[in-house]
Amino acid sequence: MREALAEAAFQLFLERGYERTTVDDIVARAGVGRRSFFRYFPSKEDAVFPDHERCLADMTALLDGRDGRDGPDPVGAVCDAARLVMRMYAANPEFSVQRYGLTQEVPGLRTYELSVVRRYEGTMAGYLRRRWADAPDGGLRADVVAAAVVAAHNNALRSWLRSGGVGDADAAVDHALGLVRDVWGSAARGPAADPRGEAEPEGSAHVAPVVGAAAEQGDDVIVMVASRKAPMWRVVQSIEAAMAAG
Amino acid sequence: MREALAEAAFQLFLERGYERTTVDDIVARAGVGRRSFFRYFPSKEDAVFPDHERCLADMTALLDGRDGRDGPDPVGAVCDAARLVMRMYAANPEFSVQRYGLTQEVPGLRTYELSVVRRYEGTMAGYLRRRWADAPDGGLRADVVAAAVVAAHNNALRSWLRSGGVGDADAAVDHALGLVRDVWGSAARGPAADPRGEAEPEGSAHVAPVVGAAAEQGDDVIVMVASRKAPMWRVVQSIEAAMAAG
Repeated sequence: MREALAEAAFQLFLERGYERTTVDDIVARAGVGRRSFFRYFPSKEDAVFPDHERCLADMTALLDGRDGRDGPDPVGAVCDAARLVMRMYAANPEFSVQRYGLTQEVPGLRTYELSVVRRYEGTMAGYLRRRWADAPDGGLRADVVAAAVVAAHNNALRSWLRSGGVGDADAAVDHALGLVRDVWGSAARGPAADPRGEAEPEGSAHVAPVVGAAAEQGDDVIVMVASRKAPMWRVVQSIEAAMAAG
Repeated sequence: MREALAEAAFQLFLERGYERTTVDDIVARAGVGRRSFFRYFPSKEDAVFPDHERCLADMTALLDGRDGRDGPDPVGAVCDAARLVMRMYAANPEFSVQRYGLTQEVPGLRTYELSVVRRYEGTMAGYLRRRWADAPDGGLRADVVAAAVVAAHNNALRSWLRSGGVGDADAAVDHALGLVRDVWGSAARGPAADPRGEAEPEGSAHVAPVVGAAAEQGDDVIVMVASRKAPMWRVVQSIEAAMAAG
């Protein structure tokens, strides 16, 4: 029923235009009553994006599953969360591309989409805030990293949609998210959340730690964040360790 | 006339609530005709945010003035652009704080604000795209950095509004933007736009450059992004230069 309504709505939007299609038109096409429509969709806009609510629920579940304070790589977790959105679009390229065209033409739909994007971003930022609750500027970092992840994802998604939904959506989003992970994967980690700090040998507590250095297999760059007070040998050691691990 | 209308509108929104105030109420209070309202504001929402259009124009002008391809520090330019928004709010703390309360209560105003934020972000991203037109992934980096700057700014703005508009708004936004500049001020610079690459002595073209290391006066951390292929001495040199500069 829900799918039938969304399909009828979308056909009509393409045939007659979004503004000229009424909810009455939609239920007539789907062969159901008017109240059925509002049982599934709060508004006409919602029928254009029938999968976002499910995707938001999936994202919340994914992040809840990685909420352990000692779990590794919170930035990686929000990147995985963003991939859920791309996957939803890529599951139905033709529909996604047609809807993108529709969204470009109807200001109300663009506004609706902005609110949805804001909810994804808020979900990711909320997760990062919990993970970085004890880190300096944890809330600020959470907001910035969530925004960066969403912007990278949307850049890849938009390119894919503009190309007509051909090409490898997963590879495109991986590349875009890679840019954020390279920069923020270590930089956004507050000292409190850094296991390296705990491994500090006793007696060297006066040595300001290197906050972190990271590189992943296949990456071309190493990102390092160090306390200004860190001695150079510790910086070099940390970079060498990151190179060896990558 | 424009200010009088905005003031009458805002008084009524506070007295009666936003939804229950009509444009007719507003023009009656301001003592002008209905058509005068729509000469200044396309909609009731616009009267709640009377200064965003001017601020957007100021931002465009500021960035146009720093559009030279050889001008230094494009990330710094978008941070300065973001400061214009904070300054607009801070120019009138009482109004800004009251409006924040109103915006929290009226979903339509939150949606309106989202579109405005998106326009600021688009203005900054457009500037960075032009600056990084020749850099690898220039468009992607532009989108990500613009989103990060906006998120950092908004985090500071929100804290300031929630505190009742007391406290130093400039210092709050400087601190938040500092986080983005530390990480992206160097990392987001594509090799094509990196002056260090050009200063590379002849005969050492096979030496992959350090992309950048940065620290600012008063910062506690140094952020470095280096090519994995960079020799350690170049990495150390770059970090030492950043320490000396900070």
